[in-house]
Amino acid sequence: MKTNSTIQVRYAETDQMGVVYHANYLVWCEIGRTDLMKQLGIPYREMEEQGMLAPVTNIQADYRAPARYGDTVTVETWVEDYTGVRVVYGYSMQNEAAEELFSGRSEHVLVNKTSFRPAALKKAFPEWHRVYEMAAAGSADERMI
Amino acid sequence: MKTNSTIQVRYAETDQMGVVYHANYLVWCEIGRTDLMKQLGIPYREMEEQGMLAPVTNIQADYRAPARYGDTVTVETWVEDYTGVRVVYGYSMQNEAAEELFSGRSEHVLVNKTSFRPAALKKAFPEWHRVYEMAAAGSADERMI
Amino acid sequence: MKTNSTIQVRYAETDQMGVVYHANYLVWCEIGRTDLMKQLGIPYREMEEQGMLAPVTNIQADYRAPARYGDTVTVETWVEDYTGVRVVYGYSMQNEAAEELFSGRSEHVLVNKTSFRPAALKKAFPEWHRVYEMAAAGSADERMI
Amino acid sequence: MKTNSTIQVRYAETDQMGVVYHANYLVWCEIGRTDLMKQLGIPYREMEEQGMLAPVTNIQADYRAPARYGDTVTVETWVEDYTGVRVVYGYSMQNEAAEELFSGRSEHVLVNKTSFRPAALKKAFPEWHRVYEMAAAGSADERMI
Repeated sequence: MKTNSTIQVRYAETDQMGVVYHANYLVWCEIGRTDLMKQLGIPYREMEEQGMLAPVTNIQADYRAPARYGDTVTVETWVEDYTGVRVVYGYSMQNEAAEELFSGRSEHVLVNKTSFRPAALKKAFPEWHRVYEMAAAGSADERMI
Repeated sequence: MKTNSTIQVRYAETDQMGVVYHANYLVWCEIGRTDLMKQLGIPYREMEEQGMLAPVTNIQADYRAPARYGDTVTVETWVEDYTGVRVVYGYSMQNEAAEELFSGRSEHVLVNKTSFRPAALKKAFPEWHRVYEMAAAGSADERMI
Repeated sequence: MKTNSTIQVRYAETDQMGVVYHANYLVWCEIGRTDLMKQLGIPYREMEEQGMLAPVTNIQADYRAPARYGDTVTVETWVEDYTGVRVVYGYSMQNEAAEELFSGRSEHVLVNKTSFRPAALKKAFPEWHRVYEMAAAGSADERMI
Repeated sequence: MKTNSTIQVRYAETDQMGVVYHANYLVWCEIGRTDLMKQLGIPYREMEEQGMLAPVTNIQADYRAPARYGDTVTVETWVEDYTGVRVVYGYSMQNEAAEELFSGRSEHVLVNKTSFRPAALKKAFPEWHRVYEMAAAGSADERMI
């Protein structure tokens, strides 16, 4: 399963190079994750309220073409891997001309909100665990096809 | 009492106009506040740890000349007014050529961290209350001179 | 004429207070302006391409209630005043519960892109001038009713 | 050659997790680059004025421990590789307790400001080319030791 999120590029997101500042693509990835999790039935806001956080542990990003103010960017997001304690998301971004702007992945560890210690999702939230497993399996299948 | 903070303008703070994006001056005001409070002996980090927050309730800002990447900006900060529950800070920013870039004020209400309800500093932290009173009185004196 | 823009609050826009960082409301105002100008037939992107910039010269902002991650915020934007060289926009923001979060105004001066000197819109772009005049007059009428 | 940059963590850089939002570490990398280039005698501001840009093409980042508001973070930056058209910088960040927070690398392509096409530094700015070559060689030597 993949989610498509639509981003209207903000003036605040540009820098004096006349294009979007590179760190802002990571914010767009976060929007993709929020939308994907909502669609999977695991709203991140609720996950935090239930006492779990998912801080980023690794980022890999390729910048292929610049986005500009006024552009409409589509962020495609999917679960690339899931181990019970770690989730890896994949991302691909395109502009309106179907030009690829960005591809990347982010790795997250699931931790307890108060202790910041890794926590197994399976134990605390078995349903969410199953959803992540299925989402990761789905992506693997799509890659095989 | 006034505090001077020094800011090296970041590339990330510019926009495609080739100058600093206007919202970032508010971040520099926050740096000025942090430095002033530290100097007054009321580090904001500690204030939060003790259960008080100081969210912004009002901003007034005049932008006089643009700051650019590579500039060194000086932020002058002072306590303009204090009522026991509200604190007003004043700001003035200059570049290396002593050109005034920005002047403004921010109003903050002191609230309890968990309830977000206004809280009188006098009751909870009488020493901090006294420091704010003196700082506000000092600014008033300077204005009279 | 008023425009309504819809904002999905981003995780990146929050701070450790657990609510949206105050400077980010100015970014939302900019989204409101972008949408209003597009609706008026003066897309800001095109205005810049034609050699005009509209940097912010003054901000006044009242923060009434905090926005949170996951909230949907509506930004209402209108032209409050127009003098030929200066444009003032007004803003009001609400959350889904129709609670007012923010009200404010931003003043902009129209300048030449290369010289950064004030430029009369009437001379360079008479049609845009007329549109602004009508938009400002419309807001004035609404205030009188 | 390595440069050390000192960062005072800003309140604006935190998110509701209570720690620094992950995209902001990329901004700190940019501060490290700015400082390193200045020390190498290739101020990035001047490079842009001379008609060259160095947009980011790839980011790799490992987040090891969170930075918090009030922390002082040291960013160590060096030239990891240089090919004449591409520059790779390496980064390592520590807090005051000498705990490693972040390590990463960023790849940049040198392009012409107007065409956004790759440009060989050697031809346009032979001196800067030589400095980059020496800096990259120096890092390689240090790795061998």
